[in-house]
Amino acid sequence: MLTIVVDAMGGDNAPGCVVDGTIEALRESGNRFEILLIGQEEKVRPLLAQHDLSAMNLRFMHAPEAVTMEDIPAIAVKTKQESSLVKGLQLCKAKQAHAFVSAGNTGAQMAASLFVLGRIPGVLRPTIYAYFPRIDEGLTNIVDVGANVDCKPENLVQFAEMLTIYQRYAAQIENPTVGLLNIGEEEGKGPESLKQTWRLLQEAHHENKINFIGNIEGHDILGGKSTIVVCDGLVGNTILKFGESIPHFLSSLLKPAMEKLVGSGQLDPKTAGLVGQTFKGLFEPFDVEKWGGVPFLGVDGISIVGHGRSSSRAIKNMIYMAEHMIEKRVNEHIAEVLS
Amino acid sequence: MLTIVVDAMGGDNAPGCVVDGTIEALRESGNRFEILLIGQEEKVRPLLAQHDLSAMNLRFMHAPEAVTMEDIPAIAVKTKQESSLVKGLQLCKAKQAHAFVSAGNTGAQMAASLFVLGRIPGVLRPTIYAYFPRIDEGLTNIVDVGANVDCKPENLVQFAEMLTIYQRYAAQIENPTVGLLNIGEEEGKGPESLKQTWRLLQEAHHENKINFIGNIEGHDILGGKSTIVVCDGLVGNTILKFGESIPHFLSSLLKPAMEKLVGSGQLDPKTAGLVGQTFKGLFEPFDVEKWGGVPFLGVDGISIVGHGRSSSRAIKNMIYMAEHMIEKRVNEHIAEVLS
Repeated sequence: MLTIVVDAMGGDNAPGCVVDGTIEALRESGNRFEILLIGQEEKVRPLLAQHDLSAMNLRFMHAPEAVTMEDIPAIAVKTKQESSLVKGLQLCKAKQAHAFVSAGNTGAQMAASLFVLGRIPGVLRPTIYAYFPRIDEGLTNIVDVGANVDCKPENLVQFAEMLTIYQRYAAQIENPTVGLLNIGEEEGKGPESLKQTWRLLQEAHHENKINFIGNIEGHDILGGKSTIVVCDGLVGNTILKFGESIPHFLSSLLKPAMEKLVGSGQLDPKTAGLVGQTFKGLFEPFDVEKWGGVPFLGVDGISIVGHGRSSSRAIKNMIYMAEHMIEKRVNEHIAEVLS
Repeated sequence: MLTIVVDAMGGDNAPGCVVDGTIEALRESGNRFEILLIGQEEKVRPLLAQHDLSAMNLRFMHAPEAVTMEDIPAIAVKTKQESSLVKGLQLCKAKQAHAFVSAGNTGAQMAASLFVLGRIPGVLRPTIYAYFPRIDEGLTNIVDVGANVDCKPENLVQFAEMLTIYQRYAAQIENPTVGLLNIGEEEGKGPESLKQTWRLLQEAHHENKINFIGNIEGHDILGGKSTIVVCDGLVGNTILKFGESIPHFLSSLLKPAMEKLVGSGQLDPKTAGLVGQTFKGLFEPFDVEKWGGVPFLGVDGISIVGHGRSSSRAIKNMIYMAEHMIEKRVNEHIAEVLS
């Protein structure tokens, strides 16, 4: 049976929502896997005591320290060896568990994953992608979204290769397509590093490692021109955070517009409420919780990174993603292609 | 009296909407300036013949060639010396006119402006910015949005300095603030080039050339954290095009949602129409036409660049912007600060 380590201390709503999400995952899946919840005893035990866990594949392990959102990643990894983060990853390294899940400090989790688990042979730099909605059905993944800046062309090509493997084996996308985010479609556009990346992606295409469709532009992301969008972490991180700010921005414009219509009698309050709900629903494709988190691609083990704001639903879905990564043997496929 | 050269052949709707916008600008302003319309006689004259121009400060000049959207910038500038674009800019260089306005091929206009007008002394690279809406009143300007990739730190600092001058003198923003777009707020974040840029911006701040507020992130653009957002052209161009794709993306989601509500009888068609209109209105802040175009900052003359899709209203507003740039002596201020 698979064992998944869940960091009880990770996330803005930890440990409460982590405990809830963990129990929900076990209940919903019918105890399909074992969960090893790790965290500070004095905070987690009282929460666990509120549930009947007798029939659950749930173990608890004490870790005296906790990495906080304020911790500086490189320092936290070194000084908090007794944290749930470091101890949890060490359990994976020692093959006592198959995957690690956390919604805590992303930078610290990346640093600790790299430090404890190491890289898959052949991988230059591990990476993190993000989900983006698109006009058609399905989803677009952008890589890298902040784990790597100053990317070299060969890094970007590996990101494309790793995400192609992920989409093909774990996301049921039969034919993943790769677009290189640039300032224009034509070959020869953009900075020198992207011209070189274009050439290397073209080579990988001819080696059947990826399906490269060429340069794409900012409007092609939501347009869904490719299933994989490759860019430096600076660009991807900026687009991601910009995208996340759109719902709030538009809601702040819609509210006074609706109030004006109600005030002038053109719209009754009930209908205005209905419209507000519909409008909110438009942003559901932007709902990151559905996916829970993302795997840190390229590390020699499974480390699922969640949003700090993760709810219990997100935690549950991160656990499922961990299970999926193990079963679909994504890392084994990456090792085959990249080594 | 000021003379503004308007490129009759520039834009997807040229020359029709250029003629209309020009006449509207003269009519609305009460002939406050003189316009020299330049383009292919056989195409423009018949359009002019439809108007009574006797009381208008409007001259026409024939230019046998036209630069198209398909032309490759560097080549067009060299081979189409008799185009409205090159001839129009030469009139400015020869001091026979004060400014040039076009909604044509942006790359060609940039190349021709640089080639014919040259740079303001001290300017390393001219740049183009874009307008972005923000939650508060007012506007955010992002610089650079595609004119320059592979920017060096000193380029980014000059962009910040030039846009500060533009906002202060021509956009009535008393205290422009500069944010450096990065992956995190803290000093020391991001790629090496941005760390160096951060230090140089800090220096410019201490010399009172700009008001630097530090690193900002993707969500701070619509959040309106600074009036000026500085980034490499690759990042700015991507964000700009991504932003432009949002209205279409959301409209394509709203339409079926509304149809569903009407179909289920929860909303009557008339109210649905009203809501659709309100929704459309939300995107008005994204309306680039209000501003018409942007000046190509740093060239030794005034060259206003418009969107290919420009309507007659956009052309009119670009003419006003040209007038404004001349009267507010923006280039003289740039020369003072940068030389």
